[in-house]
Amino acid sequence: MDYKAAFADALDKVRSEGRYRVFADLKRHRGRFPNATWTRPDGSTSEVVVWCSNDYLAQGENPVVLDAMKAAIDEAGAGSGGTRNISGTTRYHVELERELADLHGKESALLFTSGYVSNEASLSTLYKILPGLIVFSDALNHNSMISGIRGGRGPRHVFRHNDLAHLEELLAAADPAAPKLIAFESVYSMDGDIADIRGTVALAKKYGAMTYIDEVHAVGMYGPRGAGVCERDGVMAEIDIIEGTLGKAYGVMGGYIAADAVIVDAIRSYADGFIFTTSVPPAVAAGAVASIRWLKEHNEVRVKHQERAAALKARMEAAGLPVMPSVSHIVPVLVGDPVHCKLISDILLEEHGVYVQPINYPTVPRGTERLRFTPSPAHTDGMMDDLVRALEKLWVRCNIQRVGGQAA
Amino acid sequence: MDYKAAFADALDKVRSEGRYRVFADLKRHRGRFPNATWTRPDGSTSEVVVWCSNDYLAQGENPVVLDAMKAAIDEAGAGSGGTRNISGTTRYHVELERELADLHGKESALLFTSGYVSNEASLSTLYKILPGLIVFSDALNHNSMISGIRGGRGPRHVFRHNDLAHLEELLAAADPAAPKLIAFESVYSMDGDIADIRGTVALAKKYGAMTYIDEVHAVGMYGPRGAGVCERDGVMAEIDIIEGTLGKAYGVMGGYIAADAVIVDAIRSYADGFIFTTSVPPAVAAGAVASIRWLKEHNEVRVKHQERAAALKARMEAAGLPVMPSVSHIVPVLVGDPVHCKLISDILLEEHGVYVQPINYPTVPRGTERLRFTPSPAHTDGMMDDLVRALEKLWVRCNIQRVGGQAA
Ligand SMILES: Cc1ncc(COP(=O)(O)O)c(C=O)c1O
Ligand SMILES: Cc1ncc(COP(=O)(O)O)c(C=O)c1O
Repeated sequence: MDYKAAFADALDKVRSEGRYRVFADLKRHRGRFPNATWTRPDGSTSEVVVWCSNDYLAQGENPVVLDAMKAAIDEAGAGSGGTRNISGTTRYHVELERELADLHGKESALLFTSGYVSNEASLSTLYKILPGLIVFSDALNHNSMISGIRGGRGPRHVFRHNDLAHLEELLAAADPAAPKLIAFESVYSMDGDIADIRGTVALAKKYGAMTYIDEVHAVGMYGPRGAGVCERDGVMAEIDIIEGTLGKAYGVMGGYIAADAVIVDAIRSYADGFIFTTSVPPAVAAGAVASIRWLKEHNEVRVKHQERAAALKARMEAAGLPVMPSVSHIVPVLVGDPVHCKLISDILLEEHGVYVQPINYPTVPRGTERLRFTPSPAHTDGMMDDLVRALEKLWVRCNIQRVGGQAA
Repeated sequence: MDYKAAFADALDKVRSEGRYRVFADLKRHRGRFPNATWTRPDGSTSEVVVWCSNDYLAQGENPVVLDAMKAAIDEAGAGSGGTRNISGTTRYHVELERELADLHGKESALLFTSGYVSNEASLSTLYKILPGLIVFSDALNHNSMISGIRGGRGPRHVFRHNDLAHLEELLAAADPAAPKLIAFESVYSMDGDIADIRGTVALAKKYGAMTYIDEVHAVGMYGPRGAGVCERDGVMAEIDIIEGTLGKAYGVMGGYIAADAVIVDAIRSYADGFIFTTSVPPAVAAGAVASIRWLKEHNEVRVKHQERAAALKARMEAAGLPVMPSVSHIVPVLVGDPVHCKLISDILLEEHGVYVQPINYPTVPRGTERLRFTPSPAHTDGMMDDLVRALEKLWVRCNIQRVGGQAA
């Protein structure tokens, strides 16, 4: 067996599909976001504007967050030193879970090492806790949710994205006595559309299902205190399990769920991905607490964030660029081909100091390859003008169709 | 469907088996490890000695680690702001992966958010990359490896713990043409025994299998530069994939694999658990780099660590306590019953200022419940004397048998 050849074959396959990923080596400079230094593979550097960060609100450089992290390092050191059960639960972890429960108006919350792990571990564990569980999963759910649902090995039905009629059809066809869970997201991060949460909750009630929502791309950014779209829409109390991340708008790292105490305690007791891993460092927990508290009180940042997203969309639309119909802070521009998408991204980086990753399969379906811009409150009008000018040139140079069509 | 009742039932089951976990709320104080402050649920506090941390070498309070973390926060901010592909690869991540490759003498390394995720994602992905793969897995492998192997959904065989004759039987019975992988650990953390790595490598060669070793409880602590037991035993180059954590002896957080470049690149390109998650904060990566570099050059810490473990074992054996036959830095003491185990641990904490978690199912098999002590270079003779005196009293009080028997 020639193992090296097998690994090389797997890589050739990725390359031949034009989706081999080259990670851009970046260095952000505190206080100068969204500017960063990009280091090429040959060691040379240049300055770029980062247009695809998920540090949506630049909390990653908010002094209150950084000070909290440094204070925790000074007080308690670097790592937690253990799993949650074996010496890895600290004051910082306890406080963060309380803060998260309060944020979402739930009795309890549970911290995981990432949003990915929170979805994967929670969803797979729900199958263990609720024998016979059937999960109804939105077709565009994130890989981490799919991984958790598959890992549970129980029955599951996928409903067409945001299609409540299809969801109802599937719910109605299922055994009325079986436990059921509807798993969906609020903001879908690659398209920027938002689920009909109220409608989903109504169906859940009608068919006796629980609801599980991923608010990863909404927490910090929506709702008067930043608890997400469920808070904005006044349906937070009607959702059974809210899942979120501390690594995007909150600017640090980690993931969580918030729910009734009995639900959280059961998942805490059964979820392998929660139990068998070192907990996050005290400094990470402390930074997250500071970030959540600060964003609770600074709604003006959310207002500015939405304004910046609207401004970018308006500029792009005026230039005839194929902005996808996002209703959120995410600004996706369709290219429709992986090779083109990567080419444009490379030219933007090399020639225009614009860093935006090509979003190719498997992150999005083949044929819908895109550039995905995430303007933050720190992105200025001038940066937007530069960006749109660069894109206009490239759209001509690469012969990509404008509004109304896919990329050539 | 009464969901709350179902969750409550699941919890009752855990409680009735005596394995409901109550996390001790601790606060370490930088520079005073292994001392910590324990906060009771009622808010009152007392001082304890932590005897079960996996911050084995107290690197979590090494100033070089803390300074590196704080410097990274000052330079680059809190979180990375993205997945590795989408703006989340920074100078710090690149440097850490180089450092890890160097540590293990491999061409390449890949950083994950935790050791758990590195095992789960890598092992499940190997099934994708090597169609028809058969994994041979040690019976006591960690939950994260089992989860990855199960997730791969391919054929797998479990060999009796450290039983190379059984492993060979299984290898010999398998299709000679099929790709094969032997997955095992170096130090088994609950028993403290160490695999026959050289023997395993010999079998792998004979049957054309690849080898995957988890050195989570060995990196930093064994080998002249701290690269683990494979380094100590001179077999590092003969292992195909070495997996480790940055959350235990290195004192921070994160996990990784090190291997040939083509292997690492393929896993990088296919592993969902690597691709679809926010990368670790720059400060975490920077702290890990500093910790690895420092431990490379401070073999005296490893010598002291082994001396402390031997000293504790000798004291316990002299007192007739049922120390399990560990050949590593881990000192497990058998209790053999979950309720007793928890009781002893509770009394140690409440009355003796000794914090050691009961290790119950599912972390170890039922009937082998134990206390697991992890003496560090910072644990003094005086602390050991106090500990052994407390255990002696409790063994009498709780009527647990001494050497030669299980707990009553
Ligand atoms: C919808 C969604 N859920 C979960 C995650 C995972 O969160 P984290 O980055 O904290 O692992 C992501 C992205 O990373 C995501 O886009
Ligand atoms: C053998 C083994 N592998 C992997 C892990 C997971 O590593 P991490 O804590 O970095 O997730 C652990 C414990 O946590 C372990 O004991």
